[in-house]
Formats: sequence, structure tokens, C-alpha cells
Amino acid sequence: MTDATTLPGSPDPTAISDEAYRALDGAAVELVSIRRAGELLDAVGPRSFLHAGPPIDLEEMPGPLRAAVSCALMLEGEASTIEEAGAIIDRGEVTIRPGHDVGCVGLVAGMVSPSVPVVEVRATGGRRAFCPLHEGMAPSLRYGAYGPAVLERLRWLGEVLAPRVTAALEDNPVDIVELIQEGLRRGDEVHNRNNASSAALALRLAPGIVRTAPTALAAQIIEDLASNPNLFLSFSAPTAKAIGDTVAGLGAPRVVTAMAANGVRLGVRVGGTGDRWFTAPSTAGEPRMFEGFEVADANPAMGDSLATETVGLGAFALSGSPALAAFFGLTHAQALETSREMRQISVGISSRFKVPIESYEGTGIGIDVRKVAETGIAPIINGGFAHRTAGVGMIGVGLLRLPIEPFLEANAALDAALAPA
Amino acid sequence: MTDATTLPGSPDPTAISDEAYRALDGAAVELVSIRRAGELLDAVGPRSFLHAGPPIDLEEMPGPLRAAVSCALMLEGEASTIEEAGAIIDRGEVTIRPGHDVGCVGLVAGMVSPSVPVVEVRATGGRRAFCPLHEGMAPSLRYGAYGPAVLERLRWLGEVLAPRVTAALEDNPVDIVELIQEGLRRGDEVHNRNNASSAALALRLAPGIVRTAPTALAAQIIEDLASNPNLFLSFSAPTAKAIGDTVAGLGAPRVVTAMAANGVRLGVRVGGTGDRWFTAPSTAGEPRMFEGFEVADANPAMGDSLATETVGLGAFALSGSPALAAFFGLTHAQALETSREMRQISVGISSRFKVPIESYEGTGIGIDVRKVAETGIAPIINGGFAHRTAGVGMIGVGLLRLPIEPFLEANAALDAALAPA
Repeated sequence: MTDATTLPGSPDPTAISDEAYRALDGAAVELVSIRRAGELLDAVGPRSFLHAGPPIDLEEMPGPLRAAVSCALMLEGEASTIEEAGAIIDRGEVTIRPGHDVGCVGLVAGMVSPSVPVVEVRATGGRRAFCPLHEGMAPSLRYGAYGPAVLERLRWLGEVLAPRVTAALEDNPVDIVELIQEGLRRGDEVHNRNNASSAALALRLAPGIVRTAPTALAAQIIEDLASNPNLFLSFSAPTAKAIGDTVAGLGAPRVVTAMAANGVRLGVRVGGTGDRWFTAPSTAGEPRMFEGFEVADANPAMGDSLATETVGLGAFALSGSPALAAFFGLTHAQALETSREMRQISVGISSRFKVPIESYEGTGIGIDVRKVAETGIAPIINGGFAHRTAGVGMIGVGLLRLPIEPFLEANAALDAALAPA
Repeated sequence: MTDATTLPGSPDPTAISDEAYRALDGAAVELVSIRRAGELLDAVGPRSFLHAGPPIDLEEMPGPLRAAVSCALMLEGEASTIEEAGAIIDRGEVTIRPGHDVGCVGLVAGMVSPSVPVVEVRATGGRRAFCPLHEGMAPSLRYGAYGPAVLERLRWLGEVLAPRVTAALEDNPVDIVELIQEGLRRGDEVHNRNNASSAALALRLAPGIVRTAPTALAAQIIEDLASNPNLFLSFSAPTAKAIGDTVAGLGAPRVVTAMAANGVRLGVRVGGTGDRWFTAPSTAGEPRMFEGFEVADANPAMGDSLATETVGLGAFALSGSPALAAFFGLTHAQALETSREMRQISVGISSRFKVPIESYEGTGIGIDVRKVAETGIAPIINGGFAHRTAGVGMIGVGLLRLPIEPFLEANAALDAALAPA
């Protein structure tokens, strides 16, 4: 079942990895609520925010991230113009830290301030994870847009929609893993394509919303949820984070527990090395650019949504998403090759994330850094790339082969730490 | 674009087939209402019903069809027990005719009596088509189940759910072709697999239902629609019928305009031969039987839902539905081969029914009987097979290669009729 990593000098090395495999393969994850971050996360305050990826200093933030911080300052009433917000940043009067440190993954900039609506999930064993609710396809905080419409929408989502969805969940738990499984049968890989899963989730929530919200509002909320084909990403990503953190909690060596980017650096966390980030410069690779844009316009990868690849979804399930592969400009054969290659560096094969087009073979789950080192195969993610200029939004998509160095470095660090004395 | 059939002796034969191709490829179809059949179809009365497939006499009806007639008699209050209903049938005091004659397609038995809830669609040019609303996966009229729960559910669907859905459609038209297109991107072939399209349809209807129905009822109706993974078949099948009838209205020769089975005979209608049915004995082929059943238990094919294959869906789009192919016990390569083979006997390639896994190649649309004759390739359909005993339901699934004789016979009839004098 699992092709376990064997550790030199470890008393029962196979058992450790089996436990990690079982956590990757078995953790159930349930939707708990959507609330404003201030109600859920002690780590956020009016000038204390979370961001995507490994740590980054205020001075080195790329355009979209800096703009997202400005947007958050305006959302919290700390600044009333973009210039005021910029001055606060320049004076160093705001603090930012990786959401990953407090169980939170964010899309693109991953900006979380107290008023940002956040999806809360809970895994087997009680571990919770969070992700800002996907705002939809219009200009949005995640890309560093900060106009009045962006702020107004965030407030409506946090103050109006979120409590109604949460109320609809009482006595009515929603199993996110089940929605992921059905999504894989409906051509989603739940990272860059979420059309079917988003519809299934909205439909799943609808009756509860109808029963608990005033009529006109219920209809409006259902329409809003239904209008967002990427809604589900803000549910699949924290589910992946909850699974990754569960594995991290086991301390099982060699297993990648987090991958994330902040637009400057890509960072990787690996079991057995604690909270250390192994990093490399972030890159955009060679995405397929939307009309009117060039690769040079793309900001290097940013965001935490590659949490999905960390647990066997996204590019690891690309063979199951022919519509996405075609959108990337790939043939089915290329998509299949991607998923197969990723199985070679995985801890094991999923018994629940299955791809019908491969006769229901499971996806590879859990990246084993030793296999990365042995094969020379670096993980691939499904990327969506933001314009370097804040607020423009997504301008390109495609497969991105991650830099291999962080994985090799983590593996070498474990070799050194675990070598017999 | 279209590989047109050329007719000897016809003044401008290519033009005729181009027109047929354009109708197959272009007809828009919109959802109009769900109503009880008595409100929509003059052809039905308390003892005058519609059935699936070509004409059949009361005496030769197979078990499930006879039981469905009995159920309809009980639903209409003409009989209060199955024995009373049987006596009415035996005395010949009920009349049945093919739904196809009045624009209606039905699932399995295809039984339509005045109280049966029926989906109404309308194509470009105003042509309407109808199909009994899919009752769900519990024992149902379409398989000849007739218990109190079946009758109660039909009444609830017709008297409670149907008017609420119809009300929700006012000023809010639903484009069924668009839902089919998105279904193909989500792994449905909209004949035997409708999971994603059913969810999309239910979600599409939900806000309108919330705005027009009392709260508790709205929630109940949305849950009911959401609970039926094959709901959409009762929308895709009449859409196919509307398209097929539009083509039939053009009189374009060689193009199959209807395929249907009544459990005894399979019948085919072909452009240029009017309303004539070319028939052959129906068969179950070699389906994959559900646990506990044998091929001998299966009733030969019955139902009008192969209307979907008639216009380029179902088996013609099997490559796009890996989950269904796997359920049939087929590999993706076999599914691909099926779709490719069907393109060889098609009038043309769809510009709107596209399969992402084939790099968005269109499905073959419209069966050309001359190509069937020339290649020796008989059409294939995706089949679901009923038990010979009424009410048991579906006991097997799989590809069914239709008997080639009706297609050859129609082609020969056209050759004779169109030969130069």
C-alpha cells in the first residue's frame, strides 16, 4: 500500500511513514463555519495580518502583496486612502506573518485581517484550518485590488453571507473530503478547476440557508455562491492544510507538510525538521499567458493553494481534469504523464482521491523528499499567475515545476540529523 | 464542416444535409415548464396513455410496461388495485400510443398519463418536446413499480414540486444546451451519467424557487432536486427530442431522427421516410449486471432516452465520461474508441457538444444511415436495463450495439424512393 521511507538508524522507520500515509489517506475534514478572521484567529489585529508563503519583510513585498496589505488597512479603517496605507507600511507600523504558522492558508496574497471572511474546517482529531473565502472573479483583495467595491464586497461576505452559511451548518455537517472525491469524478482537480465542486457545495448549503435566512437574502446568497466557479478552492485548500498539519504533528520525517510562496520566495516544510522553511526564489515558469500579457508581466508564484498538491490534488490529479489540462494547453497524454510522474515521488497512493479516467487509480499523496532526491523529479503544481501590478488579477496559467533545491536541502538536513552516531 | 450525404437525383442534395447539420448543431433549447401531462398533452386521458418506443399492442407488452400501465390506471383513479387495473387492460379498455408521436420521450416504460409530471422544453422555431420528470432512484413508475409510495410521490411531484419549478422559471429562462455543454466538461454524457448536470440544474433553479415558494417548501424542493443524480436526464432527453423533431421537420433524407425501444422492438425513424418506424427485435446485449442478477433477468432495452445518442450525446460522448465508462467496466481507451467509431457514421461533428479529454473535439451528431450501410457500423447506446419483473428497477448497465437491420432497411427504402426515374 505505502511505499514507506526507511530511515537509517530509526528504530521502526516504516511504522512512522505508515502513520503519515494513514493520516494523508484517512483524515476526515468537515466544514465548521465561515466567520470574520477576528472571531477565529488570535493572531490577527487591526495592524497585524497574515500573508501567504514563507516569511517576508515589509520592504521586500512584491506589488500585489503590498497592495493587499494596504487594502487590509483600509478594510480595518486604519487608513482611508491607499497613500495613507502606504505610509503606515513605510513606517513599519504593520506586522505580517505567514498564515501557515496559525493554521491558515490564503489564496495569492493570502491577506487576512480581522474583517476578512475565513472558512474554518476541522480534521479528525480536532485540528482546525482556515482560508479566506474566495471572493469571486471580480477584482479582489487576493490580487491586491483595493477599490471601494472590493471593500464593500468583503464586508458583505463577512457580515452578511458568512453568518448565514454558518447558521446553515448547524446540525448539518458538510464533509469536504466527500465533495473533493465527487469533484474528482466531475473533472475538477480542486486547485485550479473547481467548477463542479463549487456547484455541489453551493447546492449542498442551499437548503440550510433557505431554512435559516430571510427569503430575499437566502436567494441572493445562493446566487452569489453559485456564481463563483472557484468558490470551492477556499474549502479544498484549508482541507489540504488540515491534512498537512495533521501529518506535521506526527513528526514523520521526509514527508512534505507545506509548500507555499510569497511572490519572492517559495518555501517548503518537511516532517522531522520542525517549522523550518526550506526556500528558493519563486518563479512563474512558462505559463500560458492570457491575451495581451507576456510572461514578464507575471509575478513569480504566490499563494498557499499549492497546499492541494501537498496532499495529492491539483497537478497530482491533473489526469482527472481534462478541461483544465486543455485550458493549460496540454493534451490528455501530457496531463496523464504529470500525474504519473508525481506518483513516483509520493509517499503512497490515495485510496480515496481517485481518478476515473485512470480506471480509478488513486493519486500520489504526500511528497517524499528522499524520492525527490533519488529521482531528481521536482514537484509540479497547477499555477495561476498574478500580474506584477496590484489588482490586475490572474493573467496566466499553467504547470509550474517547483525549484528542486528546497526539497534536496530538507532531505540532506534529515540525512545529517538522522545519521547513526 | 459537414460531410454531407449526396443523394442521387436530388437537385441540391448537399444543401439538404447542410440544413440538417445546422439544425443538429445549432438548435437552442430552453426549459419552459414542468406540468402534469394532462395540462400539456391533448393525447393523454384517464385511459389514454403514452409509452416509450415504437407502437406496441396491449397483449404483447412486457412485464414492466404492463405494470406501468396498471400504475397509471391507479394514479388516475381508474383502478384501485393492481388486479382491477389488469382487468381493464385485459378487456382492452385502455389505449396506449408512442409518446414520440406527440413530441414526448419517456424513460424506460415511458408511461405518461394525465397526472404524470412532465418536463416541457422549447427549441428554436418554437418546437416543443416533453419528458416525464425523473422520479428519483426509489421504485418508480418508469420501471413499473406501483406501490402507494410511488403514486404518492408522483402526485407530490406533479401537484407540489412542478408548479413551484414552473413559477421559478418566469422571467428566468434556463438554457438546457448550455447545461449540457458544461455537463460534458464535468464528466457527464447526459444519458446514463448526469451527476454534475443534475446538480448544476438544481442550483440554477434554486434561487427562483426560494423567491416564489414558501420557505419550508422551497428548502424541501431544492433538497429533492439535489438528491437525484439522474434528474437531468429528463431534461436532456426532451432536448434531444426537440432537436430530432426539428431535423425531422426538415425532411432531410438519411438522417436518423428517432431511436426508441418498447422492450419488445427497437424502432428507428429516418428523415425522408416520414413517420415510419423501421424495427427489429429489442435486445439487452451483454450488459454488466449488478450483483445478484444475470443477463437473462434483463428485459430487452426499453425507453426513449436513446434520443440522446440520436443527437450526439450518450455513447457518442462516452469518451467525455470516464466515471461512466469505468462503471460500465470499460477502460478509457475503449470509451474513446466508442466515441470515435460513432463519428464515422455521423452527419457531422458538433461545434458545441465538445469533449475536453479529446482536446475539445466535438461529438458526432446525427446518424447517417448511408454511412451505417457503407461502414457496417451500427450505432451504440449507453444502456441501463430493467429487470423483466415489474418494479425491480435497473439491474445492469453497459454499451449496447443496436441491431443494424432497421438502419439498412431505411437506407434501402431511401435508395429505392430517391432513385432516378
